[in-house]
Amino acid sequence: MKIAILGYGTVGSGVYELLEQHSHIQVKKIWNRPNPDKQIPLWCEDFKQILLDEDITCVVETLNGIHPAYECITACLKQGKHVVSANKAVIAPYYEYFKQLAQDNQVSFLFEASVAGGIPWIHHLERAKKANTISRCYGILNGTSNFILTKMTQEEKNFEQVLTKAQELGYAEADPSADIDGIDILNKINISASVAFNGKINPEELLTCSMRYISQADISYFKQKGFTLKYLGDIQVKGETYEGSVLLNAVDTHSLEGNVFDQYNLVSLVGSNIGTLKFFGQGAGKKATADAIVQNLLDIQEGKKDQQSLPLNQLQYRPLDSHAYVIKSSKKIPEQWIQAKDSHYYQTTYLTTVQVKELLAYLDDPQAVVVRIMNNLG
Amino acid sequence: MKIAILGYGTVGSGVYELLEQHSHIQVKKIWNRPNPDKQIPLWCEDFKQILLDEDITCVVETLNGIHPAYECITACLKQGKHVVSANKAVIAPYYEYFKQLAQDNQVSFLFEASVAGGIPWIHHLERAKKANTISRCYGILNGTSNFILTKMTQEEKNFEQVLTKAQELGYAEADPSADIDGIDILNKINISASVAFNGKINPEELLTCSMRYISQADISYFKQKGFTLKYLGDIQVKGETYEGSVLLNAVDTHSLEGNVFDQYNLVSLVGSNIGTLKFFGQGAGKKATADAIVQNLLDIQEGKKDQQSLPLNQLQYRPLDSHAYVIKSSKKIPEQWIQAKDSHYYQTTYLTTVQVKELLAYLDDPQAVVVRIMNNLG
Repeated sequence: MKIAILGYGTVGSGVYELLEQHSHIQVKKIWNRPNPDKQIPLWCEDFKQILLDEDITCVVETLNGIHPAYECITACLKQGKHVVSANKAVIAPYYEYFKQLAQDNQVSFLFEASVAGGIPWIHHLERAKKANTISRCYGILNGTSNFILTKMTQEEKNFEQVLTKAQELGYAEADPSADIDGIDILNKINISASVAFNGKINPEELLTCSMRYISQADISYFKQKGFTLKYLGDIQVKGETYEGSVLLNAVDTHSLEGNVFDQYNLVSLVGSNIGTLKFFGQGAGKKATADAIVQNLLDIQEGKKDQQSLPLNQLQYRPLDSHAYVIKSSKKIPEQWIQAKDSHYYQTTYLTTVQVKELLAYLDDPQAVVVRIMNNLG
Repeated sequence: MKIAILGYGTVGSGVYELLEQHSHIQVKKIWNRPNPDKQIPLWCEDFKQILLDEDITCVVETLNGIHPAYECITACLKQGKHVVSANKAVIAPYYEYFKQLAQDNQVSFLFEASVAGGIPWIHHLERAKKANTISRCYGILNGTSNFILTKMTQEEKNFEQVLTKAQELGYAEADPSADIDGIDILNKINISASVAFNGKINPEELLTCSMRYISQADISYFKQKGFTLKYLGDIQVKGETYEGSVLLNAVDTHSLEGNVFDQYNLVSLVGSNIGTLKFFGQGAGKKATADAIVQNLLDIQEGKKDQQSLPLNQLQYRPLDSHAYVIKSSKKIPEQWIQAKDSHYYQTTYLTTVQVKELLAYLDDPQAVVVRIMNNLG
């Protein structure tokens, strides 16, 4: 099989290097966004050279961001080329569109590396759902935010110090917003929902709160109460309805989630027969992510059939459960929301996700810290 | 697809019940060891009726133990029927024989449920090894022993009390030996090695020590030092050599292993690209184990190809690493083995597995408690 790689950053170059061990998958061309300033092997100047090369039956897309990834994936699928993508930002909104294009052109669109990096998460969702109704997906899905929380907890440093260190180590981007404001996790939860529930959600309906206002004092406050803070994505369905969130959760110090450190991920599914399954591994990193892409290339080579039935079902947002929250705000929270108050920490109890959104809109405090008390980690 | 089920205990009946949801897989006959005293649906008196029924293309074997499972599996494969087995006791010694028979007769021999129950462990070993060299498999592979250690640790009860409770709850057999003396884990490690390394080991060479002599005092001793005791199976390879063990390990209280409670399993692999992957879930239980069997039936229905290349490579036993051990014995350990002594606890350090075997043979104390200090959980 002859392939091309789009993008030659950490992941793209990782795929190129791993494929040197696989003589039956040959990289023929590599394209990067215009004017790369580094030496790229097999570099071709024009994406069209890849598109029109009939030898190339499969394209690996590692460009990041929506454009030009959207145009490249669309063109390749229409041209009858398989596509393997690691790019959650473009898959999350266009999942159904790409899957339909792939079906129409009798090729595969695969994306294991887009969620939880080296963990075979997408593969296992697809496998589990053959014999199970999956009702929930949740977990630690972002290595950068978990690295920051780990160092804040273990080394008692503040957020800014740890973020700077993470940037120096290459674990955080110069603009860390996607990782610490929840966008990255939201994309991964959205993709997981498409696969696990065969369902379409509206990501704007999820309660998504940044983790960037967490302080060392907050971490200590929860530690004293036997909790560790983790930044989790969570989505649950019941029939045609769903709820979901991306926010800081206070988890039991003796939960598995509470003991996942540094940049590692831990992601869980709940199935009707198998109960809770949890998968731990490297959610990012050159070799681990490249491995997920190579696995998808091997799937294509083996002619593995696509499981997805289209169109997706439109799911309706409806809070399925009440949750207890602790909210820290410099502004005063109205009495009717509060169960208890402890310095700046308002403990509200049994609020649904919708009510928390109302409360936050009312508060108008962009730096409020919202923490859900998580007592149901399966 | 029409199938038969051999054995109608927890797992066999679980498969029958789950398959009521799968209209395209029909159970035609069920056979149990002679003279069942309960009402079994679709019961047939004579195994030969199944063997000679040409409608039945696949047989699920949940008989437990070596005989008559060995004869039944052999006969079915020779007759050109696919076999799905949950029976680790017969698979571990006859893995290569069954796989070869299946190849010769162009059918599948699958066994997901035999290791780690509902966790898709075997499936994932097969998937990971397509793109990785796997160097190690280890983890909590036995629910009964983990349940006992959990209750001893959390409720400060002694071994006998907890074993009795586990037997009442159905988590432990009347004769608990397979679970607490390591045979069950040894079988699972042996099967994992066959799959992960394509390798044949001699299970007698592994350092296997019972967990039945552990006391509440031992648990407290390790707890004070920041360790939790877990009963782990572990096998590592390097080239054509291997080492392995089934014994109590003192793991960091903040490791994932240290926070796996009750009857749950957590099993890990180390791959050359993906690093460490860990899988958590129900290692036993009716629905979870039946789910693993149903997944294998779906694999057969989809015509999934068998990955195994035969014959297996004969691996040579050779300690790959030194480990530190703590040994409690009523007998005196010679000075040259000891790094430190603390009441009855002899701390020996950097002993290879072979040396521990020598030491134990020398001691001649069947009730010695051997604990490895595990500082490499990936």
